[in-house]
Parts: sequence; C-alpha cells; structure tokens
Amino acid sequence: MAEVLTSEYRLARESDLKRFVASVLERVGVAAADAAIVADVLVASDLRGIESHGVARLESYYVSRIRSGKLDPTPVVTTVRETPASLLVDAGNGLGHPVAKRTMERILEKAGTTGAAFGAVRNSNHYGIAGYYAMMALDRDMIGIASTNTVRYGAPTFGRDILLGTNPLAFAIPAQSEPAFVLDFATTTVPRGKLEVYGRKEKPLNAGWAIDENGHETLDPKVALKGALLPLGGFGVEGGGHKGYGLGLLVDILCGVLSGGAFGADLPLPTDGPQPGKISHFFGAFKIDGFRDPAQFKADMDTELRGFKESAKSPGHDRIYVAGEIEYENTLKNREHGVPVHVKVWDGLQKLAAELDLPFEVE
Amino acid sequence: MAEVLTSEYRLARESDLKRFVASVLERVGVAAADAAIVADVLVASDLRGIESHGVARLESYYVSRIRSGKLDPTPVVTTVRETPASLLVDAGNGLGHPVAKRTMERILEKAGTTGAAFGAVRNSNHYGIAGYYAMMALDRDMIGIASTNTVRYGAPTFGRDILLGTNPLAFAIPAQSEPAFVLDFATTTVPRGKLEVYGRKEKPLNAGWAIDENGHETLDPKVALKGALLPLGGFGVEGGGHKGYGLGLLVDILCGVLSGGAFGADLPLPTDGPQPGKISHFFGAFKIDGFRDPAQFKADMDTELRGFKESAKSPGHDRIYVAGEIEYENTLKNREHGVPVHVKVWDGLQKLAAELDLPFEVE
Repeated sequence: MAEVLTSEYRLARESDLKRFVASVLERVGVAAADAAIVADVLVASDLRGIESHGVARLESYYVSRIRSGKLDPTPVVTTVRETPASLLVDAGNGLGHPVAKRTMERILEKAGTTGAAFGAVRNSNHYGIAGYYAMMALDRDMIGIASTNTVRYGAPTFGRDILLGTNPLAFAIPAQSEPAFVLDFATTTVPRGKLEVYGRKEKPLNAGWAIDENGHETLDPKVALKGALLPLGGFGVEGGGHKGYGLGLLVDILCGVLSGGAFGADLPLPTDGPQPGKISHFFGAFKIDGFRDPAQFKADMDTELRGFKESAKSPGHDRIYVAGEIEYENTLKNREHGVPVHVKVWDGLQKLAAELDLPFEVE
Repeated sequence: MAEVLTSEYRLARESDLKRFVASVLERVGVAAADAAIVADVLVASDLRGIESHGVARLESYYVSRIRSGKLDPTPVVTTVRETPASLLVDAGNGLGHPVAKRTMERILEKAGTTGAAFGAVRNSNHYGIAGYYAMMALDRDMIGIASTNTVRYGAPTFGRDILLGTNPLAFAIPAQSEPAFVLDFATTTVPRGKLEVYGRKEKPLNAGWAIDENGHETLDPKVALKGALLPLGGFGVEGGGHKGYGLGLLVDILCGVLSGGAFGADLPLPTDGPQPGKISHFFGAFKIDGFRDPAQFKADMDTELRGFKESAKSPGHDRIYVAGEIEYENTLKNREHGVPVHVKVWDGLQKLAAELDLPFEVE
C-alpha cells in the first residue's frame, strides 16, 4: 500500500510492518518468538490509533536500550511464586511485551480452571499498551485487567515531588454484536507528550494538567515540563484530583509493591535515562460464567453499550462513544486501508534499517 | 458523652448510636442480626467522617422505604449461582448492608481457599459506604474490592441524558504500621449533595462538576440540579472526563450487567422515588501470599505510603495524605471523643424514636 494519506502520514501494510519490526528486534539479538510478540503489540497500538505507543517507539524505547546494554534481549525469565490463582514472574530485565503476554496467557489458563486469577511481573520494561493484555480475556468470555507502573512524571495531590508514573489501568469486557468495552487510561490527566506537543505549538495548557517545580499550577508548557503532571481530576481536590492520585498510587502498589519490584521514588525519572528492570506489571482475569450465562451477559452488554451510544448528545456533538469504540473503528479502518505511520517515524524506521543493514520492505 | 462539639454537632457514644439504629430497624421489622449489620455500617461511616452516608440516612433511605413497602425488611435472599471463585446473590429487595456484608464474607472465604474470588448482588438497595466491604479483606491479608451502582445522577461525555450513578469504586490494601490504603471514591466529580450545599449557600459551582439540562456546562447550582453531574475529569475530554465516564460505566457493568440486575436507563432517577431492588453490588478479594510473604509486603506498603506522606508539599499545604488516612484518623478521634452527629440529624433521630415509641438512649 504505502500510499500517502496526508502529507504527514504514509500507510503501511500491517503484515509488512510487523515483519519489519520483528526483523529489527531479531537483528539486535531478540529471539524470534519474542520479537513477533513485540511487533504484534506495537502494530496493534498503531492500528488502534495510539501512535504514541506504537512503532514510533521501536528505536528509542527498545532497540537503543538493547544496543546500549540497558535491556537484556535474551532475559532469564523466572517464575518466582505460583499458586492455582496467582503468578509472580521476574522478567530478568527483558522486553516487557513477551513476558506480559505470556504471563497474561498463564493467568487466563488459571482463571479458566479456578474462575479467577491474578499475576504480577517485576524487573521488566515498558510493555506498550495495557489494553492489549486486558483484551486477551475477551475471546475466552472473561473480564480482563492489566496495568503497569511507569517512569515517574506526576505529583500527588498537595505535593510537588515527582512520585507517580502515568500508571495506566485497563479493563476489557466482551459484548455480542457491539465492540467490546475496553477502558485503557492513564491515571494522570494527560501524558507528558501532550505538554511537549503544546510546547512546540506554543499553546497554553489546560487547567488540571500540570504544576511547576514549586507546586503551583501552570499553563505554560515549558514551565510544566520542568514540573510535574497532575493526576486525573486535576489540581487540589475540588475537581477530584485526590481520586486520580489514589488510582495512580493503587497502580503503583498493585504493580510495584505486590510484585516486590521498584515502586515510589525508586522508579526512574525521565532524566535518569533507562534504568534496568525498574518497571512492574499487574494482570487479572475472571470468568463471566461464574455469574451468568456468557451469551445472556453479552446480549445485555449490547443493550448497555447501545443505551449510552444512542442517548441524547450535547450541543456540538453527534456521537457518544463507549470505551474502546474509537480504537476498534480505527483498527477496522487501518486493517482495510493500511496502518498510518507519520513520515518522521517512517524515515526513522528506514534509517534504522540502513543502520542495521536490513531491508526496509514495508509497503 | 453527648457533649456539644460545636453549636452544630453533638457527640454520641458509638455503642449507644449503634444500639439505637438497630432498635429502630428492628421496630420496623428487620431481623436483629440484619439490623446490627446496618447499624455497624452506618456508624462506621460517621466514625470515618463520612456524614452523608451515616445515620443521617436512617430515616430517609431505609426506615421510610420499609414503612412505605418499597423495601422488604425480611427479604428472601437467594444464591443464584455459585462456584469456588464466584457468587451471585439475589437480595430479594432487602436492605443492602446485610446482604453485602454476608456476600463479602463468603467471597473472602472463597478467596481464602482458591486465592481469588468475585461476587455480585442484584435486586438490592443502597448499602452505605463501599469502603466498609473492601476493608473486610484487610485482616485476612487480602486485597479487597467493592463497588455499587446507584440512582442515576450523571451524564456521559458528550451527552446530556442522565444515565450514570455516582458509582463508587473501593479498594483496600493492608500495610503494617501505617493505616491501610483505602481508596473509596465516586466516579462522578462530586456527589449531587454538593450541588445542593452550594445552592443553599448561593455559591457558584466549580468547573467540571455539572451540566444544565441541554448539555452545556454550568456553574449555577440551581440550573445544575435540573441537569446532570459530570464524570471525574469534568466536561468533555480535555480534563479526562472520558476516563471518569469509562469508570462509571465499568461500575455499572460489573454491578448491573454482570449480576443480571438493573443497569443503564433501567436504574431509577432521583425523581422516580424509591424503586424496589434496582441496585446491584460487586465485590472481589485476592490473597497477598499468592505473590509475596504478607509481612514483607506490608513492610513495603509502609515504605510506599510514607514515601508519599513525607514528600515535598505544595505551597500552602503542610500534609500529603494517602487514601483512607483522613478517615482512619477521624475514626480514632471519634472513637475517643464520641461520634459527631449534626444537631438536625440528632433531632431527626429523636423524632423517629418518638414516632416509633422507642426510647432514645444515646449519650
């Protein structure tokens, strides 16, 4: 395909893009099976329209860290503790995606037997979009949960120290004819990348996004980039910022403390550069048939989701979405027409291919 | 005790208050064991400083509904489905608190055996604070989860129909020397009661709280009371309102759809008056020792929570709290000095005692 979508994007064939991502990772020493998983997760993110977590990160988050020795391409992954309903895995400072996918598979197996199971992974690295792992539950008529702590960007309510990652939480729940409900959200109001975008455009930030380094709210992106992100709900407590802060801390506990991994101020700051194995993940799943017949449940899910989608719109809006719907529609569209890749990212992938002496066969 | 705290509050002895609440419920036909549970949950709320969910609701939420035949004081509670890791209960349109407490007890028993378990209750009524049930996991070295859908007050992002309750989510995680982490929050930015308080004081609302009946954001409490609450994150998507909407819908699915109870537009509006058995609850628990030695985990929880509490404060703030800390300190203080009861609530309880020909022996 590779037609030009706009002047800023080119369209790539999904299979080509995955094959190329996997070939890059294999070239820097990642096992083929692991590389294929990373490629699947990254391209799934681009398919869903979440460019920030897709192939754009291949070089900076993964390849460069392997080449600089910060991330082990052939990690020793160990099961630290296992029961019929739980699993704790040490990722051996490897890529996050393969260990996350395999841990979620084992959790789904366990939940298939026991009805409900949870798992955690420590000593890992960035694993892409949390929603990918939660969605693995859908085909099995289970409800899936996935989360991860991250590099620190955010401050707690009433505080100015940077102590919390963007700490996403994801839940996936199947429906019948409707797309599944897939809620996947950062527990900060916005990601740090949004401050950078506003900085480049010299646009003032929205209230509730960030504080300066002294702990005052700021709308200046350059000042905010030296400060901290605010939790969902914004500054102080009037907009519910303490709730977002609580959710961010919940994620750090479920990932970092429960796994015996890094948590709180032991997590890296962005300025620290890559820190081996400081990231932890959390997963869960439980069976719908422990409560109801899954077919009845999914028929009711259709009713529930349609009830929201078909309700009255605010002025100036012609659609109400449910969580995961936009990403589902993006996936359908991008599967048909090609995966949009920003020209700068496209150029970066070509440059990476040349550096690694690999063909760039993406159309 | 019953000393005067301020001109607005009197202090009640905890045991007297519980005994009185239980005696009122027994007088209107509730079994003694059930009445004792309701009394414990309501007074726990007042002890924690959450007046809105405490004895202030005894008459309007519970007694009046029993007396008007809207709520069954002697419900037939049935187990609809049960597996080693799950439980679905029909509350028979009884009080929410007894069925919720007993369901969570059974979930904790199940999780003690299997490692992880979930439960749901349908055809129920308001159950007080969600945190009470999540906290039942703490003594067992488990992580507890509780949620409930509610009467409808809120609109989805880009919408103006009232489709979502305040739908609280609660998580309780034990620590060692520090108070437990207890996150218990409504997924709307504020409760409807806050609009009423601002209306009485003729104060403008904060941004992000409410819309008018046409779907425009409003700061006028009187206009907002005819409109709808906004989800956590506020109006539109810039402040993350779609995340709060997603959380609210998640709760409605886990409670209403998973239980086969009422959900979405089938939930009552406040103006509908009490609707029998339209409320559903959701519970979960899993064992910490499936991941780590609980003593080590709890020691790390102390480190995690202290790391936040001892971090640098914003200008004008001398404390950073972690979720549940304020409520824990309120409980200690109120256990020592007495439970604060607003004079209007106190008068209401006395009036109720007179109506029911019961002694009001609260000091």
